[in-house]
Amino acid sequence: MAPQNVGILAMEIYFPPTCIQQDTLENFDGVSKGKYTIGLGQDCMAFCSEVEDVISMGLTAVTSLLEKYGIDAKQIGRLEVGSETVIDKSKSIKTFLMKIFEDCGNTDIEGVDSTNACYGGTAALFNCVNWVESNSWDGRYGLVVSTDSAVYPLLSYFIFGNKCKPFSMADAEYFVFHSPYNKLVQKSFARLVFDDVARNASTVDESAKEKLGPFTSLAGDESYQSRDLEKASQQVAKPDYDRKVQPGTLIPKQLGNMYTASIYAAFASLIHNKNSSLDGNRVMMFSYGSGLSATMFSLRLSEGKAPFSLSNIAKVMNIEHKLKTRTEVCYQILEMTINACEREMLMEHRYGGKDYVTSKDTSHLAPGTYYLTEVDSKYRRFYAKKTTELANGH
Amino acid sequence: MAPQNVGILAMEIYFPPTCIQQDTLENFDGVSKGKYTIGLGQDCMAFCSEVEDVISMGLTAVTSLLEKYGIDAKQIGRLEVGSETVIDKSKSIKTFLMKIFEDCGNTDIEGVDSTNACYGGTAALFNCVNWVESNSWDGRYGLVVSTDSAVYPLLSYFIFGNKCKPFSMADAEYFVFHSPYNKLVQKSFARLVFDDVARNASTVDESAKEKLGPFTSLAGDESYQSRDLEKASQQVAKPDYDRKVQPGTLIPKQLGNMYTASIYAAFASLIHNKNSSLDGNRVMMFSYGSGLSATMFSLRLSEGKAPFSLSNIAKVMNIEHKLKTRTEVCYQILEMTINACEREMLMEHRYGGKDYVTSKDTSHLAPGTYYLTEVDSKYRRFYAKKTTELANGH
Repeated sequence: MAPQNVGILAMEIYFPPTCIQQDTLENFDGVSKGKYTIGLGQDCMAFCSEVEDVISMGLTAVTSLLEKYGIDAKQIGRLEVGSETVIDKSKSIKTFLMKIFEDCGNTDIEGVDSTNACYGGTAALFNCVNWVESNSWDGRYGLVVSTDSAVYPLLSYFIFGNKCKPFSMADAEYFVFHSPYNKLVQKSFARLVFDDVARNASTVDESAKEKLGPFTSLAGDESYQSRDLEKASQQVAKPDYDRKVQPGTLIPKQLGNMYTASIYAAFASLIHNKNSSLDGNRVMMFSYGSGLSATMFSLRLSEGKAPFSLSNIAKVMNIEHKLKTRTEVCYQILEMTINACEREMLMEHRYGGKDYVTSKDTSHLAPGTYYLTEVDSKYRRFYAKKTTELANGH
Repeated sequence: MAPQNVGILAMEIYFPPTCIQQDTLENFDGVSKGKYTIGLGQDCMAFCSEVEDVISMGLTAVTSLLEKYGIDAKQIGRLEVGSETVIDKSKSIKTFLMKIFEDCGNTDIEGVDSTNACYGGTAALFNCVNWVESNSWDGRYGLVVSTDSAVYPLLSYFIFGNKCKPFSMADAEYFVFHSPYNKLVQKSFARLVFDDVARNASTVDESAKEKLGPFTSLAGDESYQSRDLEKASQQVAKPDYDRKVQPGTLIPKQLGNMYTASIYAAFASLIHNKNSSLDGNRVMMFSYGSGLSATMFSLRLSEGKAPFSLSNIAKVMNIEHKLKTRTEVCYQILEMTINACEREMLMEHRYGGKDYVTSKDTSHLAPGTYYLTEVDSKYRRFYAKKTTELANGH
C-alpha cells in the first residue's frame, strides 16, 4: 500500500543572533530615509558572524530538530540540502552534515545537494516526498535542510507561469512567498488579485472589478509596467494581504532574504503566528529560483499528533524568543567595523578562503550552536559545538 | 497502478573530439615511460577546446538524444543534471538546457541540478526514478544529464560500504565502476574477489582460496595496505576482470575521468561492446563521489523494443565512430601551446571568466554540435549550433 498524505511533520529554524535595524543601515549607507524600511518593506537584516556559515547553521538546526522532536538519528533515511552558497567546489553540504549521523552509527542515508538559486530547497523537498512515495523508500524519515548565506546582490524577481493552471486568490486561506524583500511580496499578491479580476473569476467582488477593471485592457507587458495598476491593485488587495499574507512575513521582514530558506522561513512565520488555528487550512506556496525555476504548490495543514502537531512545531521553533534575544549592531559599531563594500569583500574572502582560524568568539551564540573554528590549508572545515551553559567542566 | 520496472530507456553520449595519447603526455610531462599507460591503465585523455563546456556538451547530447530516438521535446516532464563543475554560482545547468525545450513550447519541466562530486549523476538518476514512481509523475519521460569538465586534481578513491549487505563477484554478469583511472578499477574489482574469499563465499573456487586465503588474517586497514595482497588478488581476479569488467572500460580508458559522467560512460562502453547479448544480464554499478556518497546498485537489462532496444542504443551512441574520428594532439602542438600548469590556469580562468568571445573555431566539431560563442560582462553565456554540412545557405 503506497503511503498517503506525505508531507512535513516537523520543522526547526536557526538564524544568526546578530542583526542591523534597517533604519540604522539607511543612515549608514547614506540613502534616503525610508528606502529600506518603506521602499523594501524590511524591518531588520540578519548577518552571519565570522564563526557561522551554511554548514554550522545546518548542523545546529539538524541536531536541534532531532533532539526536540525526540527523533533517533538512525530513523533518518534521506538527507537532502537545498543551497546556493558554494562553500566547497566538490563536496556537498550534505556530506558535512553526515557527521551528526555518522556519530550515531547511521552512515546509510540517501540524498545530496539540490542547486538552482533560491529554488534548491523546494527541489530537495519534492525529492524527499517522491522518495517516500517510491519503491526505494525504506520506511525512515526524509530530512530537508535549506541553508544560505549568500554574498551576491539580489537579482531575483517574481514570474508567475502564465502557462500553468490558473489559481485564484480565493483558493487558499494563506499565501506564502519566496521573498527577496517584503515589498515584492506585496506586489506579487496584488498581481494575483488583478489576475483574478482580469479573468473575471467568480470570487471577485464588485468594488475590485470597478477599481481594477479599467486596467484589464492593458496588454501583458504593459500591465507589468503600469505604476497606476500597481498602486490600485495593492490598495484593493490590502485587506486580503493583511489576512492571508502578512502572517507569513514576520521572519523575512526581520532577517532579509534567506535565499533557499526564504519561503520556508515565511511558512515558519505563519505557523508561529497562527499555530493550531491552521488546522484544516490550505496554504499556497510560491517558490522561485533565478535562472529560472518556479513552482506554485499548496499544503493542507492539520493539527496532527504530538510531537508532530502544529502547536508543538511552533513551540519547538520558538521564534519569538529567537528574535527577541538577538544582538543589534548599532550605528557606531557598524561605522567602526566596516562599510558596505568591505562587508561584501570580507564575505567573498571568507567563503573562498583557506588556512585561517576564526576568533572562536561564541559570546553571541546560544548554547548548543555549532560554529566554525578553522579552515585548514586543504580547505577542510572544522566545527565545534558551544556547550550548554549548565554543563560543568567542558 | 504504480509503474513497474522503471529504468533507463535510451542513452546518448557526447565527448570532446580532441585528445592526447597518454604516452605523448608522459613524454611531454617528463614523467617515466609507462606512468600513465601502465601505472594508471589509461590510453588517451580527452579535453575540451575553448568552445566546449559542460553546457554546450549537454545541449548537444540532449538534442541528439531527442532527435535520434524520435522523442518530442514536449514528452519530457523532468530534466535533472548531475555535475560538479561550478560554471555559474546561482543558475543551474538545467536552466541553460531548458532553451531546447522552451523553443518547443515546453516550459513545464521539473528538476534542478544534483551536486555531490562525481555522485551527482547517480543522485539525479535516482531522483528521476523516484519521480516516476511517485504521485507527482504525469506520465512523461525523465531525462538525466551528467556533464563535467573539471579542473581539480583527482582526490577520489574507492570505498565499499562495509555496513551494506555483502555482494559477491558472482552476483552479476558485468561490473561497471566509477573510474578516476583504470588502474583503480582493476584494484577495486580485485578487492571484491578478495572479500568473497575472506567471507568464504560459496562461489569461490579452490585455487582462489589457496592463493588469497593466507591474507584473510590481515586486519581491515592492513589488508588495504598490503602490496602483496593487491598483487595476488589482481592475479586471481584477472580472468573474471577480463570477462566481467573490461567490456565497460573502453571510454574511460580513452577519455580519462569524466566525473559525474564516468560511470555512465563505462555503462555505455558495455552496451557498445556487448549490445543485444546483454539481454537478461545483471550489471552491478558502483557510483562514488568524494566527500563522500557512494551507492552500489544493479540493473537488469532487457533487449526491449525499438527505438529503446539495446541494439538501437548502441547504434545511436555510435561510440566507435566518435572515437575513431577524434583529432589527436601531437607532441609538437602540445609543446607549442601550453604546459600542464598553464592548461590548468587557462581552464580556471575560462570557467570563472567573463566578458570574452571565443574563437568560434568549430573545425574539429561534428555537425550538430553546440559551442560557446561568448560570455558577456554580466556572465551570461551564449551558444550556437554548428549547422549540418548538408544545410545550404545557413
